[in-house]
Amino acid sequence: MKQWFEELVQRNETKIVMVVLDGLGGLPINGKTELEAASTPNLDALARISATGLHIPVSYGITPGSGPGHLGIFGYDPLEYQIGRGVLEALGLGIELKNTDVAMRGNYATVKDGIIQDRRAGRIPTEEAQMLTEMLQNEIRSIDGVEIIFRQGMEYRFAVVMRFPEPLKEDSAMVNDTDPQKIGKPPLKPQPMNENSERVAKVAEKLINRASEVLRNQQRANYVLLRGFSQVPHIPSFEENFGLRALAIAIYPMYRGLASLVGMDTPAVEGDIKEEIDFLVQKFNDYDFFFVHIKKIDSFGEDGNFDGKVKKIEEFDKYLPRILELKPNVLIITGDHSTPCLLKSHSWHPVPVILHAPYVLGGTSSSFTERECLKGELGIFPAKYILPLALANSGRLKKYGA
Amino acid sequence: MKQWFEELVQRNETKIVMVVLDGLGGLPINGKTELEAASTPNLDALARISATGLHIPVSYGITPGSGPGHLGIFGYDPLEYQIGRGVLEALGLGIELKNTDVAMRGNYATVKDGIIQDRRAGRIPTEEAQMLTEMLQNEIRSIDGVEIIFRQGMEYRFAVVMRFPEPLKEDSAMVNDTDPQKIGKPPLKPQPMNENSERVAKVAEKLINRASEVLRNQQRANYVLLRGFSQVPHIPSFEENFGLRALAIAIYPMYRGLASLVGMDTPAVEGDIKEEIDFLVQKFNDYDFFFVHIKKIDSFGEDGNFDGKVKKIEEFDKYLPRILELKPNVLIITGDHSTPCLLKSHSWHPVPVILHAPYVLGGTSSSFTERECLKGELGIFPAKYILPLALANSGRLKKYGA
Repeated sequence: MKQWFEELVQRNETKIVMVVLDGLGGLPINGKTELEAASTPNLDALARISATGLHIPVSYGITPGSGPGHLGIFGYDPLEYQIGRGVLEALGLGIELKNTDVAMRGNYATVKDGIIQDRRAGRIPTEEAQMLTEMLQNEIRSIDGVEIIFRQGMEYRFAVVMRFPEPLKEDSAMVNDTDPQKIGKPPLKPQPMNENSERVAKVAEKLINRASEVLRNQQRANYVLLRGFSQVPHIPSFEENFGLRALAIAIYPMYRGLASLVGMDTPAVEGDIKEEIDFLVQKFNDYDFFFVHIKKIDSFGEDGNFDGKVKKIEEFDKYLPRILELKPNVLIITGDHSTPCLLKSHSWHPVPVILHAPYVLGGTSSSFTERECLKGELGIFPAKYILPLALANSGRLKKYGA
Repeated sequence: MKQWFEELVQRNETKIVMVVLDGLGGLPINGKTELEAASTPNLDALARISATGLHIPVSYGITPGSGPGHLGIFGYDPLEYQIGRGVLEALGLGIELKNTDVAMRGNYATVKDGIIQDRRAGRIPTEEAQMLTEMLQNEIRSIDGVEIIFRQGMEYRFAVVMRFPEPLKEDSAMVNDTDPQKIGKPPLKPQPMNENSERVAKVAEKLINRASEVLRNQQRANYVLLRGFSQVPHIPSFEENFGLRALAIAIYPMYRGLASLVGMDTPAVEGDIKEEIDFLVQKFNDYDFFFVHIKKIDSFGEDGNFDGKVKKIEEFDKYLPRILELKPNVLIITGDHSTPCLLKSHSWHPVPVILHAPYVLGGTSSSFTERECLKGELGIFPAKYILPLALANSGRLKKYGA
């Protein structure tokens, strides 16, 4: 977003709700996509009176990870702002990151005589790894004045954050992965790629050595490999860019983390769709913009569980009237990317969008499906334009030019 | 294409076939476009189960030449890479160009007392010009150690290539046209526009003088005008950019030449559609990507021969099942630009696209026509995105971002 855009932004009392059904879009199995198979009377009725279309998260043919998928629908160009693997891992495990931090993804590994025998330490169970991670945290609290934060993930995976005493320069995390990606080789040393990253590499090296000492008696998990050294990107905040006080409502820490990167408030919420919507109702007077993240639709897609994905979409459909009762000025319903059960993974396919707002044509789509949204007034368009459309429809964008 | 894209490319064993029906798109005459008038049961059946849409070769309202038309569908931005007129002429006449070469388009002209009387030497017949061109080639084989290659075109047109002993710097062909574009004026001297082009201009001047000597006894064609001094552009190859070993199958040298600019293999093929498809079948195990160029549809369009264009489309339709029998993972059927009989020329109109692939919605278009493709899931999109879509559908693109 450029300055010309920010100059058009004006504030008012309107409310914008963006519901992100994670991994919404699908592909036909036996002729019908997940959305086509789902019985969604409320979404269909809404589609009939709304602007519809499909958004392209990053670019044609490009399958987005969760980071770029969300940046796009938050109004940022996902090719301009990149979120490193370490940062995403740390966010996903609930670590709140600052501009003093370098985050890495860690693997427990098995090393003998300086050679990697197993890059995943025999895929040790999460419970066992959790104990090791607590041990590491107890033994290694800081290195050279840098606070070290460990957080256990699934199985052999964990996140580490080095929290420096002062904000870091922009390219301070330019350090190579220490995982050579092959067994039978020695682990790599963390090497700085520039002057700013020298200190980071030095602390990382000491961290690896200290961890090896702590883990020396372990059979399998006696070494840590570090990957994806990264810092939080400098993204202009939602409030700066769009003049919106924004609240993220998400069960999973990663999505709250992504929202925090653009400056949304991200209180923890527990439960599922019902509890998220309860929270939305409760907070509706306190913010301008609400990002409501519904996760499980993507999870069923990743599992290739067609019926599960269909049922989760139907479940959301039942809660939709509660959102409509709030009468938001603009309601967007979309996904961050497609996750077709056919592919069991994220995909590049455009994602259906409903933009329910006072100033639309409507009457183009008979239901909320990929094929019906093709007929909509929004066409097929880059995800980053959803937010300007929401601002326009809520009277938050002034005229451009005289 | 930027580095971020190349980093996503991965190789596998899939096959991609791109059929380019040159000048495919049309406009209605008596209510029907050429595609609408043609009986194409096989293309129609394929359109019904495929992703469809229309591509914009260069930009809205921009009519592409053959160079930019092909660069776009080859996945390159035609505004970023430009192919000079001399290069295109030389490629069209079957000269294989290297980075040591400067190519020009030549005209035979009539000059008396230093003044141009006829810029086309009375449009002398090709046979007569052919003899002159052979004479020039026999008399002028090199100038100052630079090899000179002549190749006859149609009527008064020919191509000249100066092949230097070593690779040239990028802007070495910055030399003005010697054709003043008006009769009654003297021909212009070739002038260098920068330091790198000084040597090229000098050789060109000697070339013109030597040619004038050789042609001094000719009544009409006693002079050569040179235009479109150009070098082959530095285009990253298909293999570098997309990880594809690519074969071009084209009867006409110009299209093989264009394919060679992006590093495709370009063996000569003789015949027509049948022989091209025979060749495709024969080579199907040896490459990842196949560009099959079908020329005559454009030629009939240029002639304004509606029935001829319709029949040629119908002829291709009969051969389509032979391509489908090969079961390519991705099959693209499109054109490089439109050539409506109504206009008797290339045009700016979006070009219908079929993307037949495993991961599509399908079911949006009832036949393969401009108007039915408007309903398709690809929408109206820049030509340069066809290739990323083909790569995605063949599992050749990794996920972007974490």
